[in-house]
Amino acid sequence: MELVIRHCLVEGDARDIGIEEGRIAWVRSPGLEVPGDPTPDRVIDGRGLHAFPGLKNGHTHAAMTLFRGYGDDLPLMEWLQTRIWPAEALLTEEDVYHGTRLALVEMIRSGTTYFNDMYWHRPGVVRAVEELGLRAHVGSVFIDHGDPTGVAAGALREAVLRQVSERHTLNLRVQVALAPHAIYTVAPESLEWMADLASRNDLIVHIHLSETRSEVDACVATHGVRPAHFLESVGLLETSLVLAHGVYLDEEEMELLAAHGATVVTNPTANMKLATGGIFDYRAARAAGLRVVLGTDGAGSNNNLDMIEEMKILALVQKHRAGDPTVLTAREALALATTAPSEAFRLGSGDLEPGAPADIILVDLSRPSTQPVHDPVSALVYAANGDAVHTTICDGRVLMHDRRVEVADEDEVVATAIAAAEKLEGR
Amino acid sequence: MELVIRHCLVEGDARDIGIEEGRIAWVRSPGLEVPGDPTPDRVIDGRGLHAFPGLKNGHTHAAMTLFRGYGDDLPLMEWLQTRIWPAEALLTEEDVYHGTRLALVEMIRSGTTYFNDMYWHRPGVVRAVEELGLRAHVGSVFIDHGDPTGVAAGALREAVLRQVSERHTLNLRVQVALAPHAIYTVAPESLEWMADLASRNDLIVHIHLSETRSEVDACVATHGVRPAHFLESVGLLETSLVLAHGVYLDEEEMELLAAHGATVVTNPTANMKLATGGIFDYRAARAAGLRVVLGTDGAGSNNNLDMIEEMKILALVQKHRAGDPTVLTAREALALATTAPSEAFRLGSGDLEPGAPADIILVDLSRPSTQPVHDPVSALVYAANGDAVHTTICDGRVLMHDRRVEVADEDEVVATAIAAAEKLEGR
Repeated sequence: MELVIRHCLVEGDARDIGIEEGRIAWVRSPGLEVPGDPTPDRVIDGRGLHAFPGLKNGHTHAAMTLFRGYGDDLPLMEWLQTRIWPAEALLTEEDVYHGTRLALVEMIRSGTTYFNDMYWHRPGVVRAVEELGLRAHVGSVFIDHGDPTGVAAGALREAVLRQVSERHTLNLRVQVALAPHAIYTVAPESLEWMADLASRNDLIVHIHLSETRSEVDACVATHGVRPAHFLESVGLLETSLVLAHGVYLDEEEMELLAAHGATVVTNPTANMKLATGGIFDYRAARAAGLRVVLGTDGAGSNNNLDMIEEMKILALVQKHRAGDPTVLTAREALALATTAPSEAFRLGSGDLEPGAPADIILVDLSRPSTQPVHDPVSALVYAANGDAVHTTICDGRVLMHDRRVEVADEDEVVATAIAAAEKLEGR
Repeated sequence: MELVIRHCLVEGDARDIGIEEGRIAWVRSPGLEVPGDPTPDRVIDGRGLHAFPGLKNGHTHAAMTLFRGYGDDLPLMEWLQTRIWPAEALLTEEDVYHGTRLALVEMIRSGTTYFNDMYWHRPGVVRAVEELGLRAHVGSVFIDHGDPTGVAAGALREAVLRQVSERHTLNLRVQVALAPHAIYTVAPESLEWMADLASRNDLIVHIHLSETRSEVDACVATHGVRPAHFLESVGLLETSLVLAHGVYLDEEEMELLAAHGATVVTNPTANMKLATGGIFDYRAARAAGLRVVLGTDGAGSNNNLDMIEEMKILALVQKHRAGDPTVLTAREALALATTAPSEAFRLGSGDLEPGAPADIILVDLSRPSTQPVHDPVSALVYAANGDAVHTTICDGRVLMHDRRVEVADEDEVVATAIAAAEKLEGR
């Protein structure tokens, strides 16, 4: 036995959890010893702590922690053109490594054990994930600006093919995904090429879709169909498709996507902060049987990666949108950050049960801001925040215990990320 | 000198802050000693910490911490009728004291130094505030159910008159406010009586207004005018009026209220959580010159009292509502929690400047989730949460330092509040 958590609370009941080879071996009433159980390498005292599955962040640009708070409160295009794009043009793989490490330390501290990333300089992201012990899908942004045969597109295709062919050399926690940026930045021919590659290799495809109304209008004007139908026309619905945002999907598109097993990642904070004008229609998605998961987007437009805060904002915004406080409960918000992404990203069970990956967080709900606890899920979603996370375990490894990150020197991670950010912004 | 904070950051610049007799005596460059300065009783090392004015919560029912998470995700009337009202019917002054203490410990831990409260069993609230050292306006809920001459109304009037006549015996940090519940629960004659009492004694009047569309429709049907005009007809616009919610105020009402110097408290989290259907129109309020401050409402409908989280949600929701990311900046969100309420509630300057009340928080923005800091106000509003507060000072007294609450035994406060909540819910 690698690790045993003693006497934590699972759905309000005291439980011991045994972990072996990165998986939950058993969940038992406390103190129940079974003859033949090997002595655990490590025991964590879970008394008074609530165990939940590790949180899964469905859409990130992790290294954008470097641009946290860099140009808030600006119109989207001004933000991109005057702040983000000039800084991103200077990014090196080393910068991305440092920015991603900062993101991962933040994720560990707020209970996130998995993220689905799309960014530049992928090797920097992969190195950070392998070192810090989380799980991830890591995709390289693919943008050909509508020119599928140019030099840039050719180099990007080569890089993607290399990532796909080398994917089995990665640590099992780190997986490749294809990441065409969006339908307005990638030529249809390139999307078809990626759809074929993904289908043949059973890969997840991660793309921004229907984030703004103008994107939808442009799609209809150019292709004569709405975005989901356009995805169908280039073959992407035949892949394991993950769509970031989906704010302007209509009911028919939702039904089409649901029929093909696609997943939408809703990012309520980023959508509101950038004032994209809409809110994803969760009620319609549920009616259509469309899988929905939760994401923070990058720290540049959030400005943190706290999935506990994001669950609250998700529930608030959906209740407001629907004019109905029952439309998305605390329990559903938690499912969008645990069981639903486990299914979408093929991570195994997203519940705390034998056989599930040992991706577990222990949360301290004993603090004044979360007491009294009538329902641990309500306390987690509506009253707590990421700082309530006491212990974070991924793949059976303790990444943080008693709020001390064990897999990195936090001060060094923060300092090197600050230095990288200062250089990029020419300060 | 009672207290000196050495080498904290004020708007990014290193400063020493001297505090005497509950007020800021001076703000100086570090190390500058002035001959004749008395030796401070206490020195706080502010190195690496950002100083901000203490946060002010414009609308609370503090003791409702007892009902935190008690019946989430229910329709409003079902929540009130099956959960809140039955439990509130059993409340004693002692319960309110314990629930308020829990709220105050939570406020201290998240940087709030003032709150404007409306609840039952006022002496229990007053006792908690006097003991724990915050500032507050404390009002007794006044509800006569439309019967201004009944026994209940008579008793309430007597209690209010007693509160007003005895107000000078209170600690100066605790002030009385009149708190008619709402225009649909209080008879016009009682509102007129309170308007007259408030005008003669220069008191703040705190009332719920325009929280739901049905409230507005009922006002128009009953009185022939919208709510702000109805307030004018009963004389309340002649008082220092504080309106909680104001979700459905139209532009003409906003101009009328602005002309009379009224204040609206916007409570975005509670409005969304209860799905009241609307969002207060901040842009219109600003155009009308109407003063707006921020509140959390009670923990029963939030479910915490974290004003840092509330500032973020405020900014997000207003950007979304306006379809414009510039409509409410991080700096404006902070103003709605500091300078605007200081003016509305007559607390003196809400800035960190000589002569201002020594209501100061020191915030640790060095953590992974708030770094890099491009702008301390952005980091506070968009990336931090209440747990980033390191030190809370009110009236020159240190209420918390290095996250240790100095004015109460936190464990005892939490335990007694839990016991009170369990009793009320018949568990």
